[in-house]
Amino acid sequence: MTERKATNIKWHEGHVDRVYREQLLGQRGLTIWFTGLPSSGKSTTAFLLEHELVKRGFLSYVLDGDNIRHGLNSNLGFSAEDRKENIRRIGEVAKLFADAGVIVSTSFISPYISDRDMVRKLHEEFNLSFIEVFIKAPVEVCSDRDPKGLYKKAFAGEIKGFTGVDAPYEEPVSPELIVDTDLHRKEECVQMLIDYLIEHKYINGNTK
Amino acid sequence: MTERKATNIKWHEGHVDRVYREQLLGQRGLTIWFTGLPSSGKSTTAFLLEHELVKRGFLSYVLDGDNIRHGLNSNLGFSAEDRKENIRRIGEVAKLFADAGVIVSTSFISPYISDRDMVRKLHEEFNLSFIEVFIKAPVEVCSDRDPKGLYKKAFAGEIKGFTGVDAPYEEPVSPELIVDTDLHRKEECVQMLIDYLIEHKYINGNTK
Repeated sequence: MTERKATNIKWHEGHVDRVYREQLLGQRGLTIWFTGLPSSGKSTTAFLLEHELVKRGFLSYVLDGDNIRHGLNSNLGFSAEDRKENIRRIGEVAKLFADAGVIVSTSFISPYISDRDMVRKLHEEFNLSFIEVFIKAPVEVCSDRDPKGLYKKAFAGEIKGFTGVDAPYEEPVSPELIVDTDLHRKEECVQMLIDYLIEHKYINGNTK
Repeated sequence: MTERKATNIKWHEGHVDRVYREQLLGQRGLTIWFTGLPSSGKSTTAFLLEHELVKRGFLSYVLDGDNIRHGLNSNLGFSAEDRKENIRRIGEVAKLFADAGVIVSTSFISPYISDRDMVRKLHEEFNLSFIEVFIKAPVEVCSDRDPKGLYKKAFAGEIKGFTGVDAPYEEPVSPELIVDTDLHRKEECVQMLIDYLIEHKYINGNTK
């Protein structure tokens, strides 16, 4: 796992098997799918995890609104159809990253069980690991945290279709991990994830 | 460049800067955009390059018809609009990989200058490296190589809109590299690319 050099690669004309890239990186590629209410702490947790992983010598990357909505999905709006397509594309890109051996995190509300199950299935079809992480916090707590005051506007009816206020959030039924950001400090939340990755042998516990 | 450990990472709540991932990997992220006629040797070259890079200890990944057309772009057809969107999405995904520090190759005919310029611009906007590689071979040579006999069908009029026969291929005006697969053996073509990457300091010439 921690041996980085891939010396036994067969030279043939096709994809390099995922296992060789994983050997090179000393980690196993996977998708960590963060889901939760607006301001529940998805991005904060995802970025702190990314930092911790890179600090430990593992390659990690975060897909979030910033690099997806303004890029790949810039031609999608907020209709039901577009929201579904938004999640599908993110799932497909995450799949490619996981196949490349990267530990990729996605930070999107992704409120519907059916959409999250769809991206899980996309991964399973290719024998790629998919971890659903429910970032849990009560609506009131999220609303209090909300730096942009969007909950306030949604409660006042100024924003329509806001998840957790007048649009549904379907909680995961059996996520791989529940991270309660109301009960744990940020650093503890990240540690829970690191522990999970070590326990399931995605990364090695000893810093390289 | 070859020092893999990133020990001086700042702990803050945002993306890990690209430079830290590149430090970790000992390489610079970039997109190598292969373009050329059907059966010109794009995929063969891209996959052999991937093998050579991974063998040398560098992380590389290929985006091609197999992992894109059946996945991310499975909902696109072959209309002019869909072809353009196909290239745009591939460009956006390549951008994400390059930002993650990966040396990503794309293997698509991408016959139009305007489309290739669009993806180049997408990269330049984010200060990401983009190398256009023209995989060059005469139509007759490509047609002779063609394992699926598609050229034959296109010449016979059984397939319509086939690039190089009854649909245009716009040659790159000033690509970073021209690889003439009619004049060089496969291994020589890959070496030209490796030399380019070393010369421009994307990778280190000494195998890790």
